[in-house]
Amino acid sequence: MIGRLNHVAIAVPDLSAAMRRYRDLLGADVGEATTLLEHGVRIAFVTLENSVVELMEPLDGASPIARFLERRPQGGLHHICYEVPDIASSLEAMKDAGVRVLGPVRVGAHGRPVVFLDPADFDGALIELEEVRPELQPA
Amino acid sequence: MIGRLNHVAIAVPDLSAAMRRYRDLLGADVGEATTLLEHGVRIAFVTLENSVVELMEPLDGASPIARFLERRPQGGLHHICYEVPDIASSLEAMKDAGVRVLGPVRVGAHGRPVVFLDPADFDGALIELEEVRPELQPA
Repeated sequence: MIGRLNHVAIAVPDLSAAMRRYRDLLGADVGEATTLLEHGVRIAFVTLENSVVELMEPLDGASPIARFLERRPQGGLHHICYEVPDIASSLEAMKDAGVRVLGPVRVGAHGRPVVFLDPADFDGALIELEEVRPELQPA
Repeated sequence: MIGRLNHVAIAVPDLSAAMRRYRDLLGADVGEATTLLEHGVRIAFVTLENSVVELMEPLDGASPIARFLERRPQGGLHHICYEVPDIASSLEAMKDAGVRVLGPVRVGAHGRPVVFLDPADFDGALIELEEVRPELQPA
């Protein structure tokens, strides 16, 4: 079912500082910072040769990322996103297997449908599934 | 400096259960479990189209993974590994920038030199650098 590792997201307390570290210290290709109001975050993508790292800073205290940073003020690995060809059928399979789904399917940072699975059902790792239809997959 | 996202490692309390979840529930390509005595872990690789997820279970209470699981018994995202072409020069750049390095360069799960950077210097995310020389990079 799962295809590519779409991205790994890191919650950071200071996006600008994190972007500088990835750009200047690790020599990576860091994009512009973008605000995603509906997700309560400001993000920047680090484009690697085969995948992407998403740096995320909370916009305010109501953001789920703010709650993460309350527990881990330095930041930390937040979630891992796998691509699936059909999010509706993936969701059905998860529910059939008793996996808890966190909230409804929403539109993610890439403008595609995403959903989060309860970390309690996946070894404490927060998993995002993102629908990337086969005809849209990178060659 | 950093090239590919080599792998993401997830600490798990029960490797067999985690392998089943990735194989049966997520439909992923899960390899055989392997014991790495010198790292104190039993691991299995989940091979995705563009990268790898490493599932890690501690061999005993002395394993660093065991200490991670004491804090997070369900498991969790443990580290992210980036490839570098020359680990010695990467290390020098890190030390010059004041980044703390955790222990010496060792031989990692893929038989190549690896080193870990202090999460305190990278937004709480534990980063592993793995040397993959350009002539050994996958095409």
